[in-house]
Amino acid sequence: MIADGPRGLIYGLFELARGSRTGRYEPSYSRRMIDHWDNVDVHPVMGQVERGYSGGSLFWADGRFRGDLDRIRTYARLLAATGINAVTINNVNVHATEARLLTDRRHEVAVIADQFRRYGITTHLSINFAAPVLLGDLPTADPLDPRVRRWWTAAAARMVESVPDFGGFLVKADSEGQPGPFTYGRTHADGANMLAEALAPHGAVVHWRAFVYNHRQDWRDRSTDRARAAYDHFTPLDGQFADTVIVQVKHGPIDFQPREPVSPVLTAMPSTRLAVEWQVTQEYTGQQRHVCYLGPMWAQTLGLAPELSAVSNVGDDPFWTGHPLAQANLYAAGRLAWNPDPINVLDEWITLTFPSAPSTLRSILHRVMDDSWLTYERYTAPLGVGFMVRPGHHYGPDVDGYEYTPWGTYHFADRNGVGVDRTVATGTGFTAQYPPPQNSRYESLETCPDELLLFFHHVPYTHVLHNGSTVIQHIYDTHFDGAAQVEAMITTWRQAADLVTPALHTRITELLDEQLRSATEWRDQINTYFYRKSGIPDHLGRPIH
Amino acid sequence: MIADGPRGLIYGLFELARGSRTGRYEPSYSRRMIDHWDNVDVHPVMGQVERGYSGGSLFWADGRFRGDLDRIRTYARLLAATGINAVTINNVNVHATEARLLTDRRHEVAVIADQFRRYGITTHLSINFAAPVLLGDLPTADPLDPRVRRWWTAAAARMVESVPDFGGFLVKADSEGQPGPFTYGRTHADGANMLAEALAPHGAVVHWRAFVYNHRQDWRDRSTDRARAAYDHFTPLDGQFADTVIVQVKHGPIDFQPREPVSPVLTAMPSTRLAVEWQVTQEYTGQQRHVCYLGPMWAQTLGLAPELSAVSNVGDDPFWTGHPLAQANLYAAGRLAWNPDPINVLDEWITLTFPSAPSTLRSILHRVMDDSWLTYERYTAPLGVGFMVRPGHHYGPDVDGYEYTPWGTYHFADRNGVGVDRTVATGTGFTAQYPPPQNSRYESLETCPDELLLFFHHVPYTHVLHNGSTVIQHIYDTHFDGAAQVEAMITTWRQAADLVTPALHTRITELLDEQLRSATEWRDQINTYFYRKSGIPDHLGRPIH
Repeated sequence: MIADGPRGLIYGLFELARGSRTGRYEPSYSRRMIDHWDNVDVHPVMGQVERGYSGGSLFWADGRFRGDLDRIRTYARLLAATGINAVTINNVNVHATEARLLTDRRHEVAVIADQFRRYGITTHLSINFAAPVLLGDLPTADPLDPRVRRWWTAAAARMVESVPDFGGFLVKADSEGQPGPFTYGRTHADGANMLAEALAPHGAVVHWRAFVYNHRQDWRDRSTDRARAAYDHFTPLDGQFADTVIVQVKHGPIDFQPREPVSPVLTAMPSTRLAVEWQVTQEYTGQQRHVCYLGPMWAQTLGLAPELSAVSNVGDDPFWTGHPLAQANLYAAGRLAWNPDPINVLDEWITLTFPSAPSTLRSILHRVMDDSWLTYERYTAPLGVGFMVRPGHHYGPDVDGYEYTPWGTYHFADRNGVGVDRTVATGTGFTAQYPPPQNSRYESLETCPDELLLFFHHVPYTHVLHNGSTVIQHIYDTHFDGAAQVEAMITTWRQAADLVTPALHTRITELLDEQLRSATEWRDQINTYFYRKSGIPDHLGRPIH
Repeated sequence: MIADGPRGLIYGLFELARGSRTGRYEPSYSRRMIDHWDNVDVHPVMGQVERGYSGGSLFWADGRFRGDLDRIRTYARLLAATGINAVTINNVNVHATEARLLTDRRHEVAVIADQFRRYGITTHLSINFAAPVLLGDLPTADPLDPRVRRWWTAAAARMVESVPDFGGFLVKADSEGQPGPFTYGRTHADGANMLAEALAPHGAVVHWRAFVYNHRQDWRDRSTDRARAAYDHFTPLDGQFADTVIVQVKHGPIDFQPREPVSPVLTAMPSTRLAVEWQVTQEYTGQQRHVCYLGPMWAQTLGLAPELSAVSNVGDDPFWTGHPLAQANLYAAGRLAWNPDPINVLDEWITLTFPSAPSTLRSILHRVMDDSWLTYERYTAPLGVGFMVRPGHHYGPDVDGYEYTPWGTYHFADRNGVGVDRTVATGTGFTAQYPPPQNSRYESLETCPDELLLFFHHVPYTHVLHNGSTVIQHIYDTHFDGAAQVEAMITTWRQAADLVTPALHTRITELLDEQLRSATEWRDQINTYFYRKSGIPDHLGRPIH
């Protein structure tokens, strides 16, 4: 076996374990990082893990380090087997307790890093940009203040003493209430470069999130468009970031909806190191109670950035991921960097997870999982409009839940039509953030893909899609079809009763029952909402309440 | 001074303090009780006081008795001055910690009762119907089980040892998840009478809430109507309750909305002792951030029941009630039993609260407060439809917030019209719960009062009201007017700048600013929502977003 370095040998070994015999293997992402949103303290709203649907944190419980090194080691091996080579161990929302992981609790980082290191995984830390103030050492966190620079230099050096191969910092700055350089009239580049200066001598890097937008919008103000925000904030800074700063960009322009266009930032910053960010934890895609295999969605952004960050869906659940089949998302988040075919990756996961299963089980799982993302899309928010979820927890439908809120996520449905006009001609001008030919493709009603129609255009319910159906009929059809497909999943899964352990079969069956209940609720609320608004009945006369 | 007993002398004394010189005074309610929704433990969602907008509890903090007897004594004097003669000291939702107030923490009840007794106020306790099980003593709480009866008899006797003039129990049973007799196939009468049997030998009573409904409804099921629930549950039991059971009925059939018809239960149980329940704490009426004097609303139910229970709006806030002007609601909750004119009662409160103020202040406060309930109604949910609030905290608008939830609070707005058809002819039949002539008055579109139109009828937006306006134009008009009236309140209050202390003036000014922000938000969301649905523009061309 030949590899560029010792890590390559690890991946070669797992490759052999997958039954591979020959070939060259180079990942499409140089760094493949898992971001944990684990809190040290139990957050009063978000709990132990923000958007965590798999139990508690592997690292912390109730403010204390759990110290279960066996579990962390097993987890490290699991990640390495999927091709992951970096991990950020705490939530990007860094509160007072978590801020201390950088200082007097860094021995916890060291112990965790020791476990990950065995499997070629470097450990990174989310930090609070205002840590010099938050921890009481300085009156300012201004990135151009020499005292602040010295503070971070010292903090980085101490961290590297504890973790010699420390990976670096991940930062959510000036976003959703987190502190950042704006407080001091500085730019994101000023902030990121200051941290890079502290880390670079140690070979460590800064991941700086591009998830910055106005979350105190007035819904009455039609001039603001949240989709524009990351591009507007970051592209003017292209070329200003240090070499060891990676700007981390969500895969879509808004926030991990089941269907968004690819973020225009990913093609607009040629002089900046970029990472694409995926959300493996299923915040908007069924919260690990629904089967929703996300590999096909992520495949859309393969190759658009040199690095990958994926938000973890793992907890101390016995199946790691709550829903046993959500393991496939964790697997794909790493493996897609090596194998760009998401269904083939899913097949790998099935084969490795059920090594002695008959081919019927493999076939059953493919039937349940291959198209599960599209099924989920069908019974939830239609045609790329997104965000029709219950505020706060984000599970289940509430069409107007965010419509009049400060979060900038609107659908503008009225009695005539629905959708957000983001065209240059008559809307927010967001389409201009794309290079040709995408810009004109999205701008034009004729060429805009149906699945993104309402993301880019406000159209009447009678607008005819490329498939010949009207928008309103498409809403009814997809919602009836989506819920029916979940019923079909249940029928299919029933055939696996004797092919897996009873415990596993029961757990997945129970979760599928909840998925059907939820899909039916989505179907009925969405259909009723749009029927009440449009007054146009279903062509096929199916029941709308 | 002549009185029927020592308590009468207390009220006579306060009457003199109000400047009265002569006359006969008899309250229209024999018992006038304040119900606290104070928790002993901080509830993870509801906090120290459920729906408490005035700081912490006067009695408990973080699980422990506060022991501030001076404050409780002052509070007792305040209540007595308003004519209150009974108080329930804890939340009707009785959790594990609160259940112990009946047993090993009853010395806290005794100490509190000692303070209230000085001012002629008896102390009552909310209990958990499943206390025999919850406290681990018995395997059942079946009210017909002799062991359970003995348990309650002993518990009542022990309580009376500690509090010789103990008032009795208040019970929320089989409601919103609270335990009750239904678990054992028994009726509310079985449950209440069992407790009455334990209390009657000591001269104490049971207050049993009629607030019982299905809170796990399916919004798709049009056959269920939450407004019907209290009547359907309780009127078949008329005559079955013991003499010392008081069935406590909310003033409206649903849940303390700014506008509801009077509950039909209040006129439908002639052989049952009834109490009417008012919500002084402003859950749905501005949460003590809005000026909303509720006296005129409560005056609608004066004389309909022999007893009164009023849910407290008091906390450890320096002004007692958060908003200083919300004190008037506390005052009116007691005083309306003696003086049925709510504006006259308000005048009393103003005169007593600002004894040395010039008449301009009195005039200013009347202009700000007299119609404040109607103003609040104007800028919130229209025409009696109710419940267009943000789920959970219930502050601010969310028209569809409860529309597809299990709570049974729907408006059925579509592109053609809005409202709940509760008629016998075509709806849920709720109108039949009223005696003549109210039943036919509500049943008929011609005679149903405008302010309750959408409570009883589903009508097109073009339906013409008695005032000649259409429903949709009325929605626009009242919402623009309501918000404008809040602006006028602010202008009026500005004139009081030199007439009250700067601290008081500033606090009320700040709260009025929030009221205006909130009223504007209500105005714009409600108008936009109904404009988007109806497509009918405002006749006057005012801005709708």
